[in-house]
Amino acid sequence: MTRSFTVLNVDEGIYEAECSIDAQSVGVARGDAEWSVRMQRLHGGLSEGVDVLSLDNGCTRLAVLPTRGMGIWKATVAGTPLEWKSPVERPVHPAFVDQGRRGGIGWLDGFNELICRCGLGWHGAPGTDAIHDADGNVVSEQFLSLHGRIANLAAHEVRVEISEDGAISVIGIVDEASMFGGKLRLTSTLTTHIGSTTFEISDTVQNLGAASAEVEMLYHCNIGKPFLGEGASFHIAAEEVAPRDARAVEDLDTWTTYRKPTSGYTEQCYFTKPVADADGRCLAVLRNPAASKAVGIRFDASTLPWLTLWKNTQPESDGYVTGMEPGSSFPNLKTFERQHGRVVSLESQQSVTFDLSVTVTTDKNDTARLTDEVTELQARHDLKLHTAPHADWSQ
Amino acid sequence: MTRSFTVLNVDEGIYEAECSIDAQSVGVARGDAEWSVRMQRLHGGLSEGVDVLSLDNGCTRLAVLPTRGMGIWKATVAGTPLEWKSPVERPVHPAFVDQGRRGGIGWLDGFNELICRCGLGWHGAPGTDAIHDADGNVVSEQFLSLHGRIANLAAHEVRVEISEDGAISVIGIVDEASMFGGKLRLTSTLTTHIGSTTFEISDTVQNLGAASAEVEMLYHCNIGKPFLGEGASFHIAAEEVAPRDARAVEDLDTWTTYRKPTSGYTEQCYFTKPVADADGRCLAVLRNPAASKAVGIRFDASTLPWLTLWKNTQPESDGYVTGMEPGSSFPNLKTFERQHGRVVSLESQQSVTFDLSVTVTTDKNDTARLTDEVTELQARHDLKLHTAPHADWSQ
Amino acid sequence: MTRSFTVLNVDEGIYEAECSIDAQSVGVARGDAEWSVRMQRLHGGLSEGVDVLSLDNGCTRLAVLPTRGMGIWKATVAGTPLEWKSPVERPVHPAFVDQGRRGGIGWLDGFNELICRCGLGWHGAPGTDAIHDADGNVVSEQFLSLHGRIANLAAHEVRVEISEDGAISVIGIVDEASMFGGKLRLTSTLTTHIGSTTFEISDTVQNLGAASAEVEMLYHCNIGKPFLGEGASFHIAAEEVAPRDARAVEDLDTWTTYRKPTSGYTEQCYFTKPVADADGRCLAVLRNPAASKAVGIRFDASTLPWLTLWKNTQPESDGYVTGMEPGSSFPNLKTFERQHGRVVSLESQQSVTFDLSVTVTTDKNDTARLTDEVTELQARHDLKLHTAPHADWSQ
Repeated sequence: MTRSFTVLNVDEGIYEAECSIDAQSVGVARGDAEWSVRMQRLHGGLSEGVDVLSLDNGCTRLAVLPTRGMGIWKATVAGTPLEWKSPVERPVHPAFVDQGRRGGIGWLDGFNELICRCGLGWHGAPGTDAIHDADGNVVSEQFLSLHGRIANLAAHEVRVEISEDGAISVIGIVDEASMFGGKLRLTSTLTTHIGSTTFEISDTVQNLGAASAEVEMLYHCNIGKPFLGEGASFHIAAEEVAPRDARAVEDLDTWTTYRKPTSGYTEQCYFTKPVADADGRCLAVLRNPAASKAVGIRFDASTLPWLTLWKNTQPESDGYVTGMEPGSSFPNLKTFERQHGRVVSLESQQSVTFDLSVTVTTDKNDTARLTDEVTELQARHDLKLHTAPHADWSQ
Repeated sequence: MTRSFTVLNVDEGIYEAECSIDAQSVGVARGDAEWSVRMQRLHGGLSEGVDVLSLDNGCTRLAVLPTRGMGIWKATVAGTPLEWKSPVERPVHPAFVDQGRRGGIGWLDGFNELICRCGLGWHGAPGTDAIHDADGNVVSEQFLSLHGRIANLAAHEVRVEISEDGAISVIGIVDEASMFGGKLRLTSTLTTHIGSTTFEISDTVQNLGAASAEVEMLYHCNIGKPFLGEGASFHIAAEEVAPRDARAVEDLDTWTTYRKPTSGYTEQCYFTKPVADADGRCLAVLRNPAASKAVGIRFDASTLPWLTLWKNTQPESDGYVTGMEPGSSFPNLKTFERQHGRVVSLESQQSVTFDLSVTVTTDKNDTARLTDEVTELQARHDLKLHTAPHADWSQ
Repeated sequence: MTRSFTVLNVDEGIYEAECSIDAQSVGVARGDAEWSVRMQRLHGGLSEGVDVLSLDNGCTRLAVLPTRGMGIWKATVAGTPLEWKSPVERPVHPAFVDQGRRGGIGWLDGFNELICRCGLGWHGAPGTDAIHDADGNVVSEQFLSLHGRIANLAAHEVRVEISEDGAISVIGIVDEASMFGGKLRLTSTLTTHIGSTTFEISDTVQNLGAASAEVEMLYHCNIGKPFLGEGASFHIAAEEVAPRDARAVEDLDTWTTYRKPTSGYTEQCYFTKPVADADGRCLAVLRNPAASKAVGIRFDASTLPWLTLWKNTQPESDGYVTGMEPGSSFPNLKTFERQHGRVVSLESQQSVTFDLSVTVTTDKNDTARLTDEVTELQARHDLKLHTAPHADWSQ
């Protein structure tokens, strides 16, 4: 039996500003684990009005942001923080984000999450998306700001579900709609089990418009210290890897390892086509310098066939961080992604589901097991490492 | 004697978040009619912080949005919903509307009202408004986004008035002002009588700036099912009617009837110069396919001399709707409307009042009486139906 | 001993929506002075969600806006209002300000404060700021909207401090940050003493980014009636004064006196390089027509070496006001100010402090003393009054 609690529902007038759901109140326990789900509204600064839903499974604590498209602000797993330090210190209410600012990169004014969705209609670099007909004529043009709308849209419905087997889920529904602009609905399910060091995201994006609609989704999973550090390493089994641009070419030989926080460092991105295991899942791992801790992201290759690695080992105050970014496409302007067949098209009522999970290891054995899994998978596949940007992947 | 209740007044620090005014509390009754006025704040999604004032006269229920320029979200008349279904499902707080988005049509991100005002300084298509001097030189330029600011400005004062004769009024005051940008004040009065199937809007726009100011106002009155449907008809007595563009020309012979929800349908607009009755009032009617229900809009020809018919029989999920839009001008770029003498100019302190009323019939007799009124009025006037766009009306 | 009260702190979850601190509750008194500090949230209109912190020292009342970058909305000193009447009547929540509107002057939609900070990264006219390398090539470009971001950013921490010597301080911290956009932190301290007619602002701006960062700050101090009026006068000791443009040249001979509210008046600005006294402080004074009242602004020449006088004797309904604007630079596009060496550059972690104070006189003797101080200072320095715009000061 699953117990369900509605935390927020605009249509039904439900808003449990200070809700608290826990083992005592629900009667679902796993040993002594002190699990709970709480909601709190932030006040002041650019965080005014941001709801934070805190899910604690007794081992893993997750701070979810219904106000920012169900993004995950930060986490703590077995006492280890899973986060990074953006110059933007606190969750930013979308009212303070003007996505059109700075030539369309205003999204960065609110960017500080551990997991931030980029999508739904598009993600990637800002620019004017021109749609051409078969003869090459421009049919329509639209300026697309960086990384799309979803991180700055708020969920109109949030539910918490507790199952008797100890699964705790947070379901959030966010609409990305406009008159004469289509209607995509994200139904996001975040699940973790009592006492677990893993959490899963299963996102369904449905086209509720009458016409077919395009979807792009990218999970901007951003991690800093203590996982990132000088000598930390990135692990992925891939068929192909290519530097995004000349800047990425510069350090191609060390593309899987990280520098310490480095003054004057300019970001580097590597585009990858990961290899999936027998279950169709890919695995990307960030391992700390001592090989004693790691973060692994597993993702479903059928809908997230690409992963972008974002290396941003800038000084800590500017955001010392790396992003492992499974995506339905690369974060280029949508026009380019469309030309290369990486934009999802959904018929009316059709949907696509994106699955990924995040797991954390906090000792050497578990960490080795995780990176060995990558190594073994790669051993069965050739890796083609391009020494220059891939013409089909980079603009 | 009229009883007055202040629901919201920023200057006086009054905000009755959960007010409830009714027959019992006020002591004004008409038989058994259970009338009431209530306010409620929405929480969650893009509706966070939107106040909804619900006025129920015992027969007609109106949901008014002080947060969105006193627009009327939706209504129910004698049990029949007066509404449409926009892809944008709920009232959107202006903080989530970036009017500059998509080349200046971001207004559509929040568009779902039954009656949405477009104005005050301008309405219509986005574009750069150039003001020329007598020699044709450009004096100033300003980018005007779609349909103006008023629907995304919030009322700073809302009062409810109950008169002994059973009139219930909601008065809302909204300023559209900017330093070096003028100051127009909308004082909006929505009135209905206990038990009535009619409601009236009387809007006064005053120029509180020192210099003369331009005003454009358009009432975007949008109706879907059950009034709209295949075979529904539009009725208006007009001197002249013209298709807006080539797309409208295509179906000129059926311009007064409607299709069922139609895949691939592109909107069609018809510009009309309505005929006024002896009292100076015009009447536009939407009749359902069975001729058993209708919505009539009466409007004062002296300040609302034009009506735009918006046909948008798209599939239901994209917004199956028609708009009857009485306006001080047509919804073209203001530059064009100014050139053709349709922009109102107010001297300092001068004001203009826009009056309209909406009535609903729910049986065949009442419906026939309403459409007969149009027919009889037209019988006394020639109708000139242009077969091509009118050079003075369409850009 | 100093007593400290946290009114708002996002990180600690503190938000004292209805706080009230006064002589009784704190036990710090100066005779009978009824001092107090209160916070209140505004509801409705464009003011929805704006916090107003009211500081009353028993003689001077200040309304501070944590939601608008710690600006000072208005004041009353010894019963005399220190304010102006903008067409925008009430404090505007930043959610209702689209700074990109009207070609980048959307800032004016929220402009009505007595003291509004312009900064931190830039202020002045909107435009595209191009940064050039030594060879004149454009290194980067960014569109800068009018007067910067700070007035539309909210404080994430607000404290009140009461010292035993009767000083009441309000400390507010506001971050102006973005990923890939630097991080400037304003720590603003507003201090006044029980019973005083003076208040002081001490603002520290620190560069929390890793790279060096540019800072521009301007205090837009705006005053209307009863200080401003026909025959009111402006007093400053200056080394140089220049009209900003041809419009300012027109009335150069009367640049220090004011007209009555004048229909058709277009703003005039005068750029000045003030003379500092032995303590490094400059003094600017606005004296009322009867010479019985004055407002004096003292400012630290070391970090605020320039003062812009903004004369805007428009009709009252358009904003009859003058601005005395001490700044780290002139309010030109940052590109121009950089070329002329007036933009502050801070190394990482470095900070700059801006000090100014406002004093009000309300009788003839005190008023004469204040203007005499200016006269005596000028007597010791030559004034160069340019009859045309200064090539280094005006674009």
